[in-house]
Amino acid sequence: MKIGVVGLGRMGLNIAIRLKNAGHEVIGYDPAVKSNEISCVASMQELATTARIFWLMVPSGVVDAIIASLEPYLQADDIVIDGGNSFFKDSVRRHDALAQKNINFIDCGTSGGLHGATIGFSLMIGGNRDVVEKLKPIFSAIAAPSGFAYMGPAGAGHYVKMVHNGIEYATLQAYAEGFHLLKEGTYKNLDLASVAHVWNHGSIIRSWVCELAENVLERDSDFTGVSGSIAESGTGQWTVDTAHEVNVAVPMIEKALELRAWSRKTGGNYATKMVALLRYEFGGHAVKKETQDV
Amino acid sequence: MKIGVVGLGRMGLNIAIRLKNAGHEVIGYDPAVKSNEISCVASMQELATTARIFWLMVPSGVVDAIIASLEPYLQADDIVIDGGNSFFKDSVRRHDALAQKNINFIDCGTSGGLHGATIGFSLMIGGNRDVVEKLKPIFSAIAAPSGFAYMGPAGAGHYVKMVHNGIEYATLQAYAEGFHLLKEGTYKNLDLASVAHVWNHGSIIRSWVCELAENVLERDSDFTGVSGSIAESGTGQWTVDTAHEVNVAVPMIEKALELRAWSRKTGGNYATKMVALLRYEFGGHAVKKETQDV
Repeated sequence: MKIGVVGLGRMGLNIAIRLKNAGHEVIGYDPAVKSNEISCVASMQELATTARIFWLMVPSGVVDAIIASLEPYLQADDIVIDGGNSFFKDSVRRHDALAQKNINFIDCGTSGGLHGATIGFSLMIGGNRDVVEKLKPIFSAIAAPSGFAYMGPAGAGHYVKMVHNGIEYATLQAYAEGFHLLKEGTYKNLDLASVAHVWNHGSIIRSWVCELAENVLERDSDFTGVSGSIAESGTGQWTVDTAHEVNVAVPMIEKALELRAWSRKTGGNYATKMVALLRYEFGGHAVKKETQDV
Repeated sequence: MKIGVVGLGRMGLNIAIRLKNAGHEVIGYDPAVKSNEISCVASMQELATTARIFWLMVPSGVVDAIIASLEPYLQADDIVIDGGNSFFKDSVRRHDALAQKNINFIDCGTSGGLHGATIGFSLMIGGNRDVVEKLKPIFSAIAAPSGFAYMGPAGAGHYVKMVHNGIEYATLQAYAEGFHLLKEGTYKNLDLASVAHVWNHGSIIRSWVCELAENVLERDSDFTGVSGSIAESGTGQWTVDTAHEVNVAVPMIEKALELRAWSRKTGGNYATKMVALLRYEFGGHAVKKETQDV
């Protein structure tokens, strides 16, 4: 299929390359990025004259602006897919607004970080089921084997991805806290990389996060020069706010969110340094140096 | 090697069978269990006349009694391995007491639950390094490939396993909380087994726990007739107590522990039902029926 990819940052470029490698015709557009791997055009207008399906992979804060700049060139039955971390209520609003003009809007939560480039991503998809059905060749090119599914009507994909990220906040913090207790606890000379390695082979808590922890600890288990200030993209806060709204208790996610705020105020501790490093390990998220202001 | 296995419950029997299948000579002893798969003896005395290496796989509360009943028959250079979930300070005490009589004591944290029978366990080993070295054929028979490592002096194995369990408490609760928000949140008809399936293929939070969640949700995502009261074996409390003692903050593990206590007082909610089911899924831990007293 022919698809225009808007936003060629870390995630967008990887997705464009996976689409291209699967035989799709990919046209990229990003005012800030020139890629040699993907044929790019110089304007949104140019993109919209060639493609009728658009994959947006941009920060959630600019999705409205991107859609506004694309909209003048859109035609009935065009499909706009937001693959970023948008708030699900915004996705419902965008879906409904575009539906007025018979333009299809699909929300797709995309997990997997930088490693998704090679093994494929996990995709949680919301919107009109028939449209999603039509896009299967695109989703299956981007996804890991068995790594995509239709979640429900508009917003459901981003809703499920939001909850995924809430769980991610809590599990990152939980592992990091455990390693903190190993590092500064009763036994002072534990080989933390070896602990993570053994945990990844047969234990109940083996996981992708624990594999990333093993990588991080193998490099330097003292986290020399790393700030314990953890950034966030907003999905954890949305999870907690939504949980309050629907009256479901999420004490673990809430605690992890609080700890991120605390880490930015105080510079954090060994555990929050580890969370910052894990976020870098999976997503390329910036890690502050200890000498920088937090 | 020739090894006596004391305690042929769910875990002990699986370990004995893995040892036997790897070619070791296994003699089992459990006053309450007769196994057709392992040659068993009828008394501790009989066991101690044939084996010089003993693997204890019994509840932490009876380890002292078991050692006391074994001790009269032990000889210098015998090796007693505690593969259960003992508190690491008890293991240090037992190690030191037996060392007085030149008997070796090794503490081995064993993770993997019932599935370990087929794929092998994750073993965290503490005690005298030379003794551990000598026991390698035994550990490698029980462990998953790459699934065992020497952690440090007496108690270090059970210390690392304690922290493992602390992380387990927190991650079980985190996933369960996320699924609770999917179940009772904004979108009412999400297919939770499908969500878990997609998360297990390419997402950041893919994990063994999430695979178990998929199994649980596939059977019945309403958790019909299940009580939300979560039992515990003590390892979470030990983790929190130890963390306080060494002045390391473990707010996530502490919160998960609090929620287990709350679940037993109140009967819990969808999330604690899921934790109870996940514990059953990996370890065969009993799940209360909703009609029973909690």
